[in-house]
Amino acid sequence: MASKPGAQLRDSEGGIAAAMREMGIAARAAARLLARASTEAKNRALAAMAAQVRAGAQELLRANRADVAQARKDGRDAPFVDRLTLTPAALEQMAAGLDSIAALPDPVGQISGLTRRPTGIEVGRMRVPLGVIGIIYESRPNVTADAAGLCLKAGNACILRGGSEALRSNLAIAACVRAGLEAAGLPAAAVQLVATADRAAVAELIKLREYVDIIVPRGGKELIERLARESRIPMIKHLDGVCHLYVDDRADPEMAVRIADNAKTQRYGTCNTMETLLVAEGIAAKVLPLIGSIYMSKNVEMRGDEATRKLVKDAKPASDRDYYTEWLAPIVSIRVVKGLDEAIAHIAKYGSQHTDAIVTEDKARAERFLREVDSSSVIVNASTRFADGYEYGLGAEIGISTDKLHARGPVGLEGLTTQKFVVFGHGEVRT
Amino acid sequence: MASKPGAQLRDSEGGIAAAMREMGIAARAAARLLARASTEAKNRALAAMAAQVRAGAQELLRANRADVAQARKDGRDAPFVDRLTLTPAALEQMAAGLDSIAALPDPVGQISGLTRRPTGIEVGRMRVPLGVIGIIYESRPNVTADAAGLCLKAGNACILRGGSEALRSNLAIAACVRAGLEAAGLPAAAVQLVATADRAAVAELIKLREYVDIIVPRGGKELIERLARESRIPMIKHLDGVCHLYVDDRADPEMAVRIADNAKTQRYGTCNTMETLLVAEGIAAKVLPLIGSIYMSKNVEMRGDEATRKLVKDAKPASDRDYYTEWLAPIVSIRVVKGLDEAIAHIAKYGSQHTDAIVTEDKARAERFLREVDSSSVIVNASTRFADGYEYGLGAEIGISTDKLHARGPVGLEGLTTQKFVVFGHGEVRT
Repeated sequence: MASKPGAQLRDSEGGIAAAMREMGIAARAAARLLARASTEAKNRALAAMAAQVRAGAQELLRANRADVAQARKDGRDAPFVDRLTLTPAALEQMAAGLDSIAALPDPVGQISGLTRRPTGIEVGRMRVPLGVIGIIYESRPNVTADAAGLCLKAGNACILRGGSEALRSNLAIAACVRAGLEAAGLPAAAVQLVATADRAAVAELIKLREYVDIIVPRGGKELIERLARESRIPMIKHLDGVCHLYVDDRADPEMAVRIADNAKTQRYGTCNTMETLLVAEGIAAKVLPLIGSIYMSKNVEMRGDEATRKLVKDAKPASDRDYYTEWLAPIVSIRVVKGLDEAIAHIAKYGSQHTDAIVTEDKARAERFLREVDSSSVIVNASTRFADGYEYGLGAEIGISTDKLHARGPVGLEGLTTQKFVVFGHGEVRT
Repeated sequence: MASKPGAQLRDSEGGIAAAMREMGIAARAAARLLARASTEAKNRALAAMAAQVRAGAQELLRANRADVAQARKDGRDAPFVDRLTLTPAALEQMAAGLDSIAALPDPVGQISGLTRRPTGIEVGRMRVPLGVIGIIYESRPNVTADAAGLCLKAGNACILRGGSEALRSNLAIAACVRAGLEAAGLPAAAVQLVATADRAAVAELIKLREYVDIIVPRGGKELIERLARESRIPMIKHLDGVCHLYVDDRADPEMAVRIADNAKTQRYGTCNTMETLLVAEGIAAKVLPLIGSIYMSKNVEMRGDEATRKLVKDAKPASDRDYYTEWLAPIVSIRVVKGLDEAIAHIAKYGSQHTDAIVTEDKARAERFLREVDSSSVIVNASTRFADGYEYGLGAEIGISTDKLHARGPVGLEGLTTQKFVVFGHGEVRT
């Protein structure tokens, strides 16, 4: 323990709980200053952070090499080491990301829906920061810069708790962030990194109800479910992505095949990848053999119901369990359904309310699918892979929410803010 | 127990837990139908409910008299009996409330912010129901009709759990609601009343994560705090209303006195009543004696700091504790502050983020107060008493949220919905 960076936090502060509480108090104070920071100051800080990342590239890469060496020594697998590794190109992307956040419009202070009421008062809503955001993430060090940038632009202070295996990299990035804040005259405590590998820090962070307004957990489902069970602070959380594509019998067959291919095979490990293909029986004979041969050629394992297996001989039998599964791999569940009603019912039963798409030329059916499928993104005639903050034009995203309250789907700057009522009067009193 | 109405629920279903789960399953199924119900069908149901309340007035009053008699027998105090009692006028108000909900625009299905992206897809957000809403409330039976009406219009199913002392009244109102739903061809399970006085029902309701999307607790702070501790379902909750009025030294003195009077004395027991008056030292000598004499004439007890007591000899000394207190009574805390900064700092420390107002003629100071006071309603030059769904033009409110996430301030139809992303494509795939 003593050899790990950040261990001094425990020693010097007399306990993780006290240290986390100190961070909470400092974050709350910084949040109050940030809430009234000008757009110009925030953008100046973001540009300075980007410049620091570029100027400090050698040092960042050196810190990262130490993390990577340790991870290899600890026997971490290749995908893990891959996520942890920073390259010069990754650093440039990080810096460019900060610049692009600076270029986004500032949501804070915008007043919408101003209306004069019969009493004479004018009522509207002003967009304001949430306050203090706690972000808990795993091995990717780029999250440190992305999350800091988004929180800052939305006027929030943040407490970042990255994976312990990325601690040296995160400390180096946090130093760039801090230098950027100071260059713009903003409080350094606006972005604080939990500088210890001790897991107890997370348990303490999710207890800081008085100082932390929202927790954004990013990482595996198990981490998120555990945090959701234990935290008394609201969360923007992202659970399963059991995404569906339904090919209606009024679909353009060529379009259906193209989208079924892309939604499954463009990338296997992402949350918006299609995991189950539903095909209307009226079009199954026309499209399933084609789709099946594409999947075969790309070594995608197919698991289908009986009707599917009649049309695609390479498909294995699907179990009920398979339809609940987020594969995140070259595997796809397939089912032939009677039509739209059965597709909607299947999605309601097996889906995870993440992203679901329909291919159809029938406007009324598209409309029904949009209204009745209760998912954070519902898509007509395009790939599920579009469900993404950048693709939606949010500029950047802090994560994707599969919850219904507050933020749903990709969460950008707006999801890191809230609205309060503002009233402009002229001396009105209530009678 | 066996003599109380609704006790059969336990006997016939084999346990409260099983019965509540049945209600959850029925509510989820009804919610799916309601989500696609037409505006016309929902409005027809609301009108039919109102007609039922009017036609069934005698029966409703009879049921209510039984509840009131029982409450008196149980030794309940006068304000309690008052909240419980229905009158012909109260019933007409209930019916008119349902009619007015029918007249509100339907938020469900509205698409906003539709934008074409460089890839060709069009991205927007569609407003959709939350799903199933659990409402836990105390003695006022009118909540049964109000909550049912609002949930229905927003396309949500609801499970209502009123106070056990109002059970006969609530059952009678729920019968009107059910008849209205059936008249419009909507599922009766869209509005279910927990027909038992057993307190275990609440504990079960807040466990139904699979079937209930949100809990709205209405009632005393203790009830809400307990539910918030125990519930694993998100809540729209309303805690303290420690509301402030800050009289700036650039205030119009006549306006300041009028608003200070109204904000405190127009009604004492409401959450948006001012509890603490902050006065800038530069104007204190001018306005405080006047305000003090008004409060004296209305028998409002004043508790002030030293500077206040020099100007208002009837004021008693205020303790630090007093400034944290939501009086809900003819008592007011008063403090003389240096100016805007000290006022904002006082509100941040002692306030409850509910509703705070400033009186000032200085636009820059008003703007700072609006931006920096982190409350659900921030008001310039008007009484805090305006913080209300009706006054804000929301049409009706299910409650006031002092939380920051999802809904903040008065919660109307919009707060009972959420937005999902909708994507209109033309065969686009991701590259």
